[in-house]
Amino acid sequence: MLKIFEGDGAAGKNLIFQLKRRGSKSSPEIERTVAKIIEDVQAHGDTAVRDYTLKFDGALPEQMELDKAEIHRAVQSCDPAFLTALDRASRNIRDFHERQKQQSWFATRQDGVMMGQRIHALSRVGIYVPGGTAAYPSSVLMNTIPAKIAGVGEIVMTTPPGKGGRPNPNILAAASVAGVDRIFQVGGAQAIAALAFGTETIPMVDKIVGPGNIFVATAKKQLYGTVGIDMVAGPSEILILADETANPAFLAADLMSQAEHDVLASAILLTTSRAVAEETVKEISRQVQSLSRREMIEKSLENYGAVIVCGNLNDAVAFANELAPEHLELCVSKPMEYLGRIDNAGSVFLGEYSPEPLGDYFAGPNHVLPTSGTARFFSPLSVDSFVKKSSFLYYTKQALEPVKEDIMTLAQTEGLTAHANSIRVRYSNGL
Amino acid sequence: MLKIFEGDGAAGKNLIFQLKRRGSKSSPEIERTVAKIIEDVQAHGDTAVRDYTLKFDGALPEQMELDKAEIHRAVQSCDPAFLTALDRASRNIRDFHERQKQQSWFATRQDGVMMGQRIHALSRVGIYVPGGTAAYPSSVLMNTIPAKIAGVGEIVMTTPPGKGGRPNPNILAAASVAGVDRIFQVGGAQAIAALAFGTETIPMVDKIVGPGNIFVATAKKQLYGTVGIDMVAGPSEILILADETANPAFLAADLMSQAEHDVLASAILLTTSRAVAEETVKEISRQVQSLSRREMIEKSLENYGAVIVCGNLNDAVAFANELAPEHLELCVSKPMEYLGRIDNAGSVFLGEYSPEPLGDYFAGPNHVLPTSGTARFFSPLSVDSFVKKSSFLYYTKQALEPVKEDIMTLAQTEGLTAHANSIRVRYSNGL
Repeated sequence: MLKIFEGDGAAGKNLIFQLKRRGSKSSPEIERTVAKIIEDVQAHGDTAVRDYTLKFDGALPEQMELDKAEIHRAVQSCDPAFLTALDRASRNIRDFHERQKQQSWFATRQDGVMMGQRIHALSRVGIYVPGGTAAYPSSVLMNTIPAKIAGVGEIVMTTPPGKGGRPNPNILAAASVAGVDRIFQVGGAQAIAALAFGTETIPMVDKIVGPGNIFVATAKKQLYGTVGIDMVAGPSEILILADETANPAFLAADLMSQAEHDVLASAILLTTSRAVAEETVKEISRQVQSLSRREMIEKSLENYGAVIVCGNLNDAVAFANELAPEHLELCVSKPMEYLGRIDNAGSVFLGEYSPEPLGDYFAGPNHVLPTSGTARFFSPLSVDSFVKKSSFLYYTKQALEPVKEDIMTLAQTEGLTAHANSIRVRYSNGL
Repeated sequence: MLKIFEGDGAAGKNLIFQLKRRGSKSSPEIERTVAKIIEDVQAHGDTAVRDYTLKFDGALPEQMELDKAEIHRAVQSCDPAFLTALDRASRNIRDFHERQKQQSWFATRQDGVMMGQRIHALSRVGIYVPGGTAAYPSSVLMNTIPAKIAGVGEIVMTTPPGKGGRPNPNILAAASVAGVDRIFQVGGAQAIAALAFGTETIPMVDKIVGPGNIFVATAKKQLYGTVGIDMVAGPSEILILADETANPAFLAADLMSQAEHDVLASAILLTTSRAVAEETVKEISRQVQSLSRREMIEKSLENYGAVIVCGNLNDAVAFANELAPEHLELCVSKPMEYLGRIDNAGSVFLGEYSPEPLGDYFAGPNHVLPTSGTARFFSPLSVDSFVKKSSFLYYTKQALEPVKEDIMTLAQTEGLTAHANSIRVRYSNGL
């Protein structure tokens, strides 16, 4: 099911082109549907939210907001081993993200001038959590913990009402551990619109983060600027660079862990060893037998998987930088020597004991990463995603005096005489 | 022309509501036009760019790219006083932005684990510079210098061809001082599309920054995610908080310096002193006589200007945080005491010798700021706007062993058995 290519360049280029185009694009119909939902929620608040919930989720929970006691009961019902693992993971994630905190700074001058940059946490943030089979507690940790560390005043979660009006208890456990303040049972574009504008029940937020289906993604994109959003997420991918020392059983397992996500997931192995390439393909056939999502894995490997044999690791690094993968594993004998040459990748996993799932769940770095080549310009979700900066400036009369002519010259060159006047008036008696 | 309100709360709320809705919204027609331009440029490259340039700019420059000699000649033709002022401003801007540089960091553990976050400059960035009357050299400095300091590999500027096919020499001087590498005479949505996809002549960039008309803004929004963009810019505003010690002549001048920008610009004075309010209105009538953009000033003050007399500075601060203005001047006797209470503002100007034009042109902080209330979640343009982060992770066999059960538990809870398999396979002989 997995093709082996020779790394002649052309095959690689073609593959990158295909992969970058595979995003689940919104259609004009979806755009219009979402625009209408947004308009209705802005105009009619809770009434519109309830109508759309009934229409799309098929049932209306008695109350939009979950009460604390209900959340507590749900958490109590979870598997203790799961709760322990969740707690340990959250400690690691907290430890990593604590290191991202930036400080406000300022500079002073002898003439009394002061200026600087302040860092403020956002006041209120919304975390969207999908329902159904895509309900991932780990994603709740990864989206919430950085916001908490940034110092966000209130963290509001929305998630579609589950079957029978009860949300997934594992999701609620993750929300508790991570520090979510309020939880609303609302999903889809109506949830995004409610968070952006606020309704009688759901408070307005400054930024919305978290994954969602095409309606959620389209609503976030349409509301970008009215509210902050995280990034435009596409289907995810892994690229593994391997030399002849790599263990094909590990490579096979790691490729499949990416491929099981969804039919658009991409898993690519780029190796300098034909033997490793061939063994990995065999290992996949062997290991896939025992995996519950076998069908999905085979489908996504068929469509967006590849094993490429290339001449040397330099070519492999160049390919990685061109693809700008979400996840990049360096399964080579001296992985650290290559780190400095990786310009474009969301997260880099070094050596054979740093498999992607270690990062997805546990080690500390965020698993919300730029996808589909956007690692060229987007960054992983971080504490920085939940702060805003502002600058400040304090000048004295003595400091402004010697530079007033320069400022007026610049203003006049741009034809903005009122700007020049604002400087001039401070040094003239009357006008 | 400027109304004085009593700060009864309702008037203020109403004003904020109006101001936040005044953005120059794109229409479905503009959306369609821009979508078509993007499609054509993606499909036909230079040919489409040339067709649209001829159509919208009325003339086609002989060559899209300006050559170095031509740029040099243009700079030589500029007023020496302007060049000196530009150079001094660029030093201050550089000095401020140098302080924003972030370092890559990593952490090690005794068990051999390493993880961290790397900071990389973007490889190539596009700066859009509008033509005609909105050609502001200061804006070229503010958009380019942070990119240069971030270490961006190549900075490409596009600007519409001027009358007679020659761009504004002051713009070229600013581009030279700031460190722009290549300049193309292309404007509008076609320039944005060309930068996003690349053409035979114009190189593909990772991020596009800089102001533009509604076609440029719409193209940037539509391409967000295909390429990085700066922020969604709306009409700009100033809010001045003043107590009874403030100088009405200064307040009047500063309000007008904002009001002269365009008809949607907003200038609001909030003061605890009715005498200051009344004197400021009189000063505006007096000073406006001598200003070249008098008509614009009167129009924008009429539509989006206000003087509000409020009971105390606490109310004024609450209003400022609600409005989240682009520029905030604190013309009060102890301005520093209020800085810590300003949560939402792009840039804060403290005291009576820190007028907004000092920041617009000269002092150092960036003048590309979040507008229309988006200071709630957007930040000023900064060195951070031109970098991306990536995380990395290195685990050892000994470090992974004791946590393998936790990771497998989390993966299995989410139903992702291939994720669990990727951990298991590393500790089993075969499967």
